[in-house]
Amino acid sequence: MRENRLRQLWRENRTAVNGWLAIPSAFAAEVMAHQGWDTLTVDMQHGVVDYQAMVTLLQAISTTATEPLVRVPWLDPGLLMKTLDAGAWGVICPMINTRDDAARLVAWTTYAPRGARSFGPVRAQLYGGADYPAHADATIVRFAMIETAQALDQIDAILSVEGLDAVYVGPSDLSLSLGCKPSFDDVEPKVAQAIDHILERAHAHGVVAGIHNGSVEAARARAARGFRFVTVSSDARLLAAGSQQILQRMRAP
Amino acid sequence: MRENRLRQLWRENRTAVNGWLAIPSAFAAEVMAHQGWDTLTVDMQHGVVDYQAMVTLLQAISTTATEPLVRVPWLDPGLLMKTLDAGAWGVICPMINTRDDAARLVAWTTYAPRGARSFGPVRAQLYGGADYPAHADATIVRFAMIETAQALDQIDAILSVEGLDAVYVGPSDLSLSLGCKPSFDDVEPKVAQAIDHILERAHAHGVVAGIHNGSVEAARARAARGFRFVTVSSDARLLAAGSQQILQRMRAP
Amino acid sequence: MRENRLRQLWRENRTAVNGWLAIPSAFAAEVMAHQGWDTLTVDMQHGVVDYQAMVTLLQAISTTATEPLVRVPWLDPGLLMKTLDAGAWGVICPMINTRDDAARLVAWTTYAPRGARSFGPVRAQLYGGADYPAHADATIVRFAMIETAQALDQIDAILSVEGLDAVYVGPSDLSLSLGCKPSFDDVEPKVAQAIDHILERAHAHGVVAGIHNGSVEAARARAARGFRFVTVSSDARLLAAGSQQILQRMRAP
Amino acid sequence: MRENRLRQLWRENRTAVNGWLAIPSAFAAEVMAHQGWDTLTVDMQHGVVDYQAMVTLLQAISTTATEPLVRVPWLDPGLLMKTLDAGAWGVICPMINTRDDAARLVAWTTYAPRGARSFGPVRAQLYGGADYPAHADATIVRFAMIETAQALDQIDAILSVEGLDAVYVGPSDLSLSLGCKPSFDDVEPKVAQAIDHILERAHAHGVVAGIHNGSVEAARARAARGFRFVTVSSDARLLAAGSQQILQRMRAP
Amino acid sequence: MRENRLRQLWRENRTAVNGWLAIPSAFAAEVMAHQGWDTLTVDMQHGVVDYQAMVTLLQAISTTATEPLVRVPWLDPGLLMKTLDAGAWGVICPMINTRDDAARLVAWTTYAPRGARSFGPVRAQLYGGADYPAHADATIVRFAMIETAQALDQIDAILSVEGLDAVYVGPSDLSLSLGCKPSFDDVEPKVAQAIDHILERAHAHGVVAGIHNGSVEAARARAARGFRFVTVSSDARLLAAGSQQILQRMRAP
Amino acid sequence: MRENRLRQLWRENRTAVNGWLAIPSAFAAEVMAHQGWDTLTVDMQHGVVDYQAMVTLLQAISTTATEPLVRVPWLDPGLLMKTLDAGAWGVICPMINTRDDAARLVAWTTYAPRGARSFGPVRAQLYGGADYPAHADATIVRFAMIETAQALDQIDAILSVEGLDAVYVGPSDLSLSLGCKPSFDDVEPKVAQAIDHILERAHAHGVVAGIHNGSVEAARARAARGFRFVTVSSDARLLAAGSQQILQRMRAP
Repeated sequence: MRENRLRQLWRENRTAVNGWLAIPSAFAAEVMAHQGWDTLTVDMQHGVVDYQAMVTLLQAISTTATEPLVRVPWLDPGLLMKTLDAGAWGVICPMINTRDDAARLVAWTTYAPRGARSFGPVRAQLYGGADYPAHADATIVRFAMIETAQALDQIDAILSVEGLDAVYVGPSDLSLSLGCKPSFDDVEPKVAQAIDHILERAHAHGVVAGIHNGSVEAARARAARGFRFVTVSSDARLLAAGSQQILQRMRAP
Repeated sequence: MRENRLRQLWRENRTAVNGWLAIPSAFAAEVMAHQGWDTLTVDMQHGVVDYQAMVTLLQAISTTATEPLVRVPWLDPGLLMKTLDAGAWGVICPMINTRDDAARLVAWTTYAPRGARSFGPVRAQLYGGADYPAHADATIVRFAMIETAQALDQIDAILSVEGLDAVYVGPSDLSLSLGCKPSFDDVEPKVAQAIDHILERAHAHGVVAGIHNGSVEAARARAARGFRFVTVSSDARLLAAGSQQILQRMRAP
Repeated sequence: MRENRLRQLWRENRTAVNGWLAIPSAFAAEVMAHQGWDTLTVDMQHGVVDYQAMVTLLQAISTTATEPLVRVPWLDPGLLMKTLDAGAWGVICPMINTRDDAARLVAWTTYAPRGARSFGPVRAQLYGGADYPAHADATIVRFAMIETAQALDQIDAILSVEGLDAVYVGPSDLSLSLGCKPSFDDVEPKVAQAIDHILERAHAHGVVAGIHNGSVEAARARAARGFRFVTVSSDARLLAAGSQQILQRMRAP
Repeated sequence: MRENRLRQLWRENRTAVNGWLAIPSAFAAEVMAHQGWDTLTVDMQHGVVDYQAMVTLLQAISTTATEPLVRVPWLDPGLLMKTLDAGAWGVICPMINTRDDAARLVAWTTYAPRGARSFGPVRAQLYGGADYPAHADATIVRFAMIETAQALDQIDAILSVEGLDAVYVGPSDLSLSLGCKPSFDDVEPKVAQAIDHILERAHAHGVVAGIHNGSVEAARARAARGFRFVTVSSDARLLAAGSQQILQRMRAP
Repeated sequence: MRENRLRQLWRENRTAVNGWLAIPSAFAAEVMAHQGWDTLTVDMQHGVVDYQAMVTLLQAISTTATEPLVRVPWLDPGLLMKTLDAGAWGVICPMINTRDDAARLVAWTTYAPRGARSFGPVRAQLYGGADYPAHADATIVRFAMIETAQALDQIDAILSVEGLDAVYVGPSDLSLSLGCKPSFDDVEPKVAQAIDHILERAHAHGVVAGIHNGSVEAARARAARGFRFVTVSSDARLLAAGSQQILQRMRAP
Repeated sequence: MRENRLRQLWRENRTAVNGWLAIPSAFAAEVMAHQGWDTLTVDMQHGVVDYQAMVTLLQAISTTATEPLVRVPWLDPGLLMKTLDAGAWGVICPMINTRDDAARLVAWTTYAPRGARSFGPVRAQLYGGADYPAHADATIVRFAMIETAQALDQIDAILSVEGLDAVYVGPSDLSLSLGCKPSFDDVEPKVAQAIDHILERAHAHGVVAGIHNGSVEAARARAARGFRFVTVSSDARLLAAGSQQILQRMRAP
């Protein structure tokens, strides 16, 4: 089975630089995939991407060596399984707030008898090889998003679920949940402390920590502190920011 | 943030005339949107419309001043949030049968810390403006469908949920649930009484009442009685009815 | 091979009532197809329909007994042939202005050695049966649009092309070309005379005459004068007209 | 209402030969539908097919007499109802593990007051006829997949749910759940015994038994033992197997 | 009819800053359209965009005040007309090499009797208003691309065609045609001279000159010399450049 | 630039085994591409595939080492160039009947100043590498289809066009054009002689010869005679043939 480069990076204690796809276009995804991101995450939660579009983005990513991940919209067994069958080499699940949430995430992404993932890796087997069924459980990466006050409260319970590979911090939702203004990078102190805490507890449990960032500066700083999976910007933000830059310079006196 | 004209109509105690979209075509939706409906509802429950198609219908509606609403297929957090992120200015949720159902509907469409909506209004912010996060909770309209015997039973409990803006009566399902024949307009007496009761209780709770209609006659009569949101027909029905009318007249002797 | 009901209607000297599809949605087309139109024409010229969408509309029509026709965007061999391969039982070609135009239309829709249609009826054979290749030439209907002053001038030359089954009058373009205001039904006298002339010459050559109409009244009047293929309205117009009717009645005092 | 040929085959104690669609292409589905399968199942669970694509596959199947079935991705009320509204004449639901699961499957596919299916058969009524609402409950076929150790344990409780028409055995998942290697046909003895048991209990409860097969041999053997619904291969497998056969023969010395 | 802001900019002797769309995604186009470009050009020639996708991009642009233009793939009457019917407020046509090419471009985009554009502005009328037919000829902008040695040779003949509003220089193709290396900005001297010549002749004929640029620097310099329509970069290039910038900074030591 | 494996096979005097794609599904194409065909040809002429679908099929093929070719619907400059820009490593052009046809095919697929291909390899450069512009002319393969009596007549004139890499025989159209029954393999003697003649003349001119086949037997026999590019069957035919085989065996007594 095709290996998961993300696991390899982590074994070498390196930080993966992750790109983010919110645009439902396989051509846009192919452009992104050819730039050299370690991983690209198709965002089915807040991105404008449904299952059928997601598959085409995974195909686009599969034309390169970049590792394909998917953020699912919710902790939903049918969609989690379809996502893996489509060839995602990792899933990020939002709003994991309890140990039970985390346990279900792991179960639904792991084959029986250990888990409850249904069998039928129709595209995953094309992409990964005929021995996918034997190695999928150990190759796929499972991220639980930590982004609420409740999750913070339950962090040790969540982190102790066997089979959970990583947590992923959503600074905006975490901010809102703690009564602060939503922000990716310039979070309020209460949120900054929470993020530190999550990172520290993840390390204590031997679980990888990842985080969403708006800027290179934030991503580098967080990587330096131990985050091993950092997202920077997104395809839609690149379009907006790049356009703004051009238009401001064109209209400057 | 772009205002919600529906709320404005209601402040003026006027009735919104709502069109209904079951056809998954942005061009068809654009034709509909240019006719002057106050609101157009994309029907993801019984319409032939999934998330990805729904986004294109919202884009089509956004070329006009008509207000875009969406009926979601079910009380599902992932899809409710994706729908709002896509720029729906209101959601209609089917089968709200208990106070708990209604409370979840409100929570999943309201940002933390008051609610549990996850943050990432990717298209809504384009459509509504950069200050969307600050005003979304107060701008978005939440409709709970009242369409079962159980909901009728629990009507006061449902209506007392804070943040629920409106109820929407589905006469066909309500008829079936009460053991009657499904119908939009010519409902059986038991159903007519139930509808009256819902309207009366909604007014008592200061909640807006809306209803689905098959004809102008029914919609006008119900508006006259106090319904402030009336749907008439649908795109698919217009095609069928218009064709029937032409063919009958062409084949008349 | 599945017969062409349009030819049968003509053999019985009856007028086909044709519906018009400008919306690129197979569901909308399926709704239209279930209403009982004799034929439905997918409009690839002015409709919002490209080849790939057209195929889905033909599939939708194929769920019923309605006869599927296609108006191609231009006299283009590649597209004419793809349209027939996709299972159109007739084609309407715009802007046939000379005998040579008409001859090419016939050649490109007729197999060698009589014509130059390339062989590969991939979907047509599914729809029509394994013996499609043997009967296609005699089953398919070819319409030449007569809609310019030049075509009017060349009408006898056009009509004398062997294999041309029918002409189709486009009153709006014909009006513009004659220096009049575009209109489907209320054409200026100069245009009305031209239409009469086309009809008369078509009959003289044993070629069927068809025409585009905006209303039942115009279509009935023209059918009474001898047009054997009359289009009335279109899917997009039904949506607009139906909506207008509802909104006017809802907003009437 | 259009009858369900599957029920008729069962009344005659005949076995339906079912084809399987994992490719999201209406043209591919139309090719399959024209080959004479008794039923074709659109696989929304492990197939690369979402709701919007599924509708186009149902339209393709509707151009023939083949009966259209859908396997839904999960026991989800919104999607089950949308599937039926789209015109599926039967649904296969995975991972039915308890009596409660089975009861919900039946309720969500049956109209009130007996069940809880919401009313709005937008495409089903086109396909099936205007009297669809009156006959849908008795026409639609409901399959519960039996594919886990838990389901095996609860088999009698599941089979005793009124309104459940059939069970469908997924040999791969059942194998995994029983600690065996996933396989369609050459299952390990423990799995073979389980399959026998399911068949025997289904017969005892008067419920039809169906099963997924990889080969004609397995399907024939199982049909001979009493399975009345046997799937053989799938569209994607036909492409792979057919290609392999050609390439091996082309490259043979 | 909705005015053409591009013509207004030109009347004020201002330079339009044009964005470029090669990605077939209405969401990506909507993101671009909300950034404030004066015009956005959907590139059907070298972009990954066909007619059906183009319509969705025009719809996305129509949610803003940005002016929608389309570069067609070739001087093809069917496609030029479909493009205008879809609501493009201007067309850029590649490879106009002779006076005859230019004359056909103008004729096919102008209604009879002056031109030969067929009548049926199905989406343009929605977008532009009911009086579109009366004002389209004077509102639509027609660009002829000057990008070959032959066109350079025929420049005065081309520019003297009545109704041609503007020329658009393609520096890459012009370079290749003159035997130089393809480049947008750093063109070889022979190409620079040719561009100067085109600009000078356009001014002499009272025709607007536009040009494709890779950078803000080139675009500003060319605008300063008199180009009144300058394209900078494209959506796909923004994704690539933005990603490169992030990855280089993330991987810097 | 990514090399063209097809040219390499030919340098080694080996015959490429080509698969054929008529189904507009990237997933189906991905299944096909993973089976090991030397080349896969997307059929835009008789396949149910338009430009936008074609791009997704090329992306699917690009996930493997199989070489992507495209048959265009007609000798059309706009579409030929878009096809190459999309990343086809070879094009097959139908109905090349004269030296002039062949010369235009070569010119439109070759950059200036030698040819007239417009510059903008938007996806080809992603797939092939940044040096695509320098090497494309020598890497891309151009096939002229020889399939009419006229082409047979003009065979030496066609074959002598510099830059034409290969001819491709369409036995069905050639049969029709010679007044015979259409067939891929069991062609009538007159057609067999014509095919022999084409092969012989191609060799004399140093041009590769390819041919369409329905069966392995025909393909092997023709490869043995010197055809260096043989197509066998197609995706749609594999679905039909595989289904037929299963159904016949299931229904055998």
